Amino acid sequence: MGEFELLAKLRERLPKDGPKVKLGSGDDAAVTVPGGATATSVDAIIEGVHFRRGETDLRTVGRKALATALSDLAAMGAEAGEAYVVLGAPADLSEGDFLALLDGLLELAAETGTTLAGGDVTRAPALTLAVTVVGHAATAEGFVTRAGAKPGDLLVLTGEIGGAAAGRLLLEHADLAAAVPEATAARLRERQLDPLPRLRSGHALAGAGAGAMIDLSDGLAGDAGHLAGASGVALEIDAGTLPLAKGVAEVAAAAGREPLELAVSGGEDYELLAALPADRLAEASSAIGEAAETTLTPVGRVAAGEGVEIRLPAGGRLEAKGFDHLAEP
Amino acid sequence: MGEFELLAKLRERLPKDGPKVKLGSGDDAAVTVPGGATATSVDAIIEGVHFRRGETDLRTVGRKALATALSDLAAMGAEAGEAYVVLGAPADLSEGDFLALLDGLLELAAETGTTLAGGDVTRAPALTLAVTVVGHAATAEGFVTRAGAKPGDLLVLTGEIGGAAAGRLLLEHADLAAAVPEATAARLRERQLDPLPRLRSGHALAGAGAGAMIDLSDGLAGDAGHLAGASGVALEIDAGTLPLAKGVAEVAAAAGREPLELAVSGGEDYELLAALPADRLAEASSAIGEAAETTLTPVGRVAAGEGVEIRLPAGGRLEAKGFDHLAEP
Repeated sequence: MGEFELLAKLRERLPKDGPKVKLGSGDDAAVTVPGGATATSVDAIIEGVHFRRGETDLRTVGRKALATALSDLAAMGAEAGEAYVVLGAPADLSEGDFLALLDGLLELAAETGTTLAGGDVTRAPALTLAVTVVGHAATAEGFVTRAGAKPGDLLVLTGEIGGAAAGRLLLEHADLAAAVPEATAARLRERQLDPLPRLRSGHALAGAGAGAMIDLSDGLAGDAGHLAGASGVALEIDAGTLPLAKGVAEVAAAAGREPLELAVSGGEDYELLAALPADRLAEASSAIGEAAETTLTPVGRVAAGEGVEIRLPAGGRLEAKGFDHLAEP
Repeated sequence: MGEFELLAKLRERLPKDGPKVKLGSGDDAAVTVPGGATATSVDAIIEGVHFRRGETDLRTVGRKALATALSDLAAMGAEAGEAYVVLGAPADLSEGDFLALLDGLLELAAETGTTLAGGDVTRAPALTLAVTVVGHAATAEGFVTRAGAKPGDLLVLTGEIGGAAAGRLLLEHADLAAAVPEATAARLRERQLDPLPRLRSGHALAGAGAGAMIDLSDGLAGDAGHLAGASGVALEIDAGTLPLAKGVAEVAAAAGREPLELAVSGGEDYELLAALPADRLAEASSAIGEAAETTLTPVGRVAAGEGVEIRLPAGGRLEAKGFDHLAEP
């Protein structure tokens, strides 16, 4: 199929409006009336760099392209709004492949209340999805940046980590699957291939007074470093409190790796790390409970100074080896 | 250079704010307060598909990537606002290449009053620039779509056409340059390599009551067809009135092509075609004069019916052969 036919198929399937969308795809531009402040983030995933065709179905690739972009909005505490997609299609992409990608995008859009408001299709040497997402808040101050962590704040983490890295190991070394029950292995692979953006949790944490927030795409150590740097503070993380996804310990052991290494340097978990005034913890936990998306765990604190210290239970210090993950910042 | 270093260099050079930008690149998302309605468009240019490295310098490639995206905003009558760029960098892209691209983007952003508010850098098999642009108007009704042309309206065209197609011929067949003075050849190549979005003209036409507007990326015949289809009308274009860029006739003759073919099917001129109530022509011409960007020419009219008819001066009908241009819709 040529680009024109693909573009027509894309536009055919796009919804014509959303709560803030006055004019969807098909004109020179989509028209929205934001009615407050917007948070905008761009992200791209490219075959051979961020994913391998054949490792999973293209519906899931479409879902992940949108999920990783929306995760940045979750980290702002934004309400999901619109998404715009540039799809670069290699010559061997069949109509079925294309529609599967689009179905994945539309499926996650529907699940997250995002309107796919525009798109473009072009020929490309490798399958490319560049996704722009726009989220909303009543005012610019309603968004949570990386820069507002204060000494004395608690550090809290949504969900469980290390799962995406363990999933990557399972995808690359099929024999490791023997280390865990098949349902656990499947769940870990899913953490890698089909992450879910923590939009409701991010919104709940913003409402509960989070002063700074970031999503874990590079890995806890790296992303905590970004937050510490932007806020001009030091972060102390208690390794013993980190909630590891089920099966991470077993897969790590079978692979001759440290479970904590996967959790701290593995990346792609797309959970949220936030700094929270200590007296807001109960409120935040209750808001996360109501969001009914995932759990919340205190994992450390903010101190004066700079950098990230990860404290091992035994009093040691974690040496985070470079973990070879596929994710982009 | 790795992606992280490229990303750091990108962020280093991005301005920290613009009139509506509260938080620029470097956090999870950029924060803006639009204060009205927004028009958003996405566009990508990819090496080997839309341009060839070596045909021009990378500064100009950066300019064109942003220009073609902004042209969609011009066609909405929007005020330029923010741009977000995903840059896919092949392994052989040097730091100098990267900075040249970025300089081109920033240069055209400054010329057009656009804030480059965010970006992402990733590894890619071929140089890829995916650009999202956001334009503004006080209300959604302030934008001009493709759908509002009415029978009885005049068709008006900004600037001159055929130049980009003649420029493409000159780039591909160096011997054709003998057909025109070198300054003319250089100007035609520039029309192809370094188009300028007609933002001020689009805004002026919107203010003067244009009911429908589109930018000429595919070529006059194709884009007029899009406008006719969206408005549910027929367009009659008088071929004899079409303003051809200087040198198009000579280059076409030397290449054994019809000048009108280049003008009508050549594409990539990025001029604007608008439908205008007949009693607003004087006002529109005056507004275009004040915009001081280019000229305005009446080229036909809107009628009841469907489709596009291009009337030759001799009473014949133009047979638009498929012209092999590189542009995307």
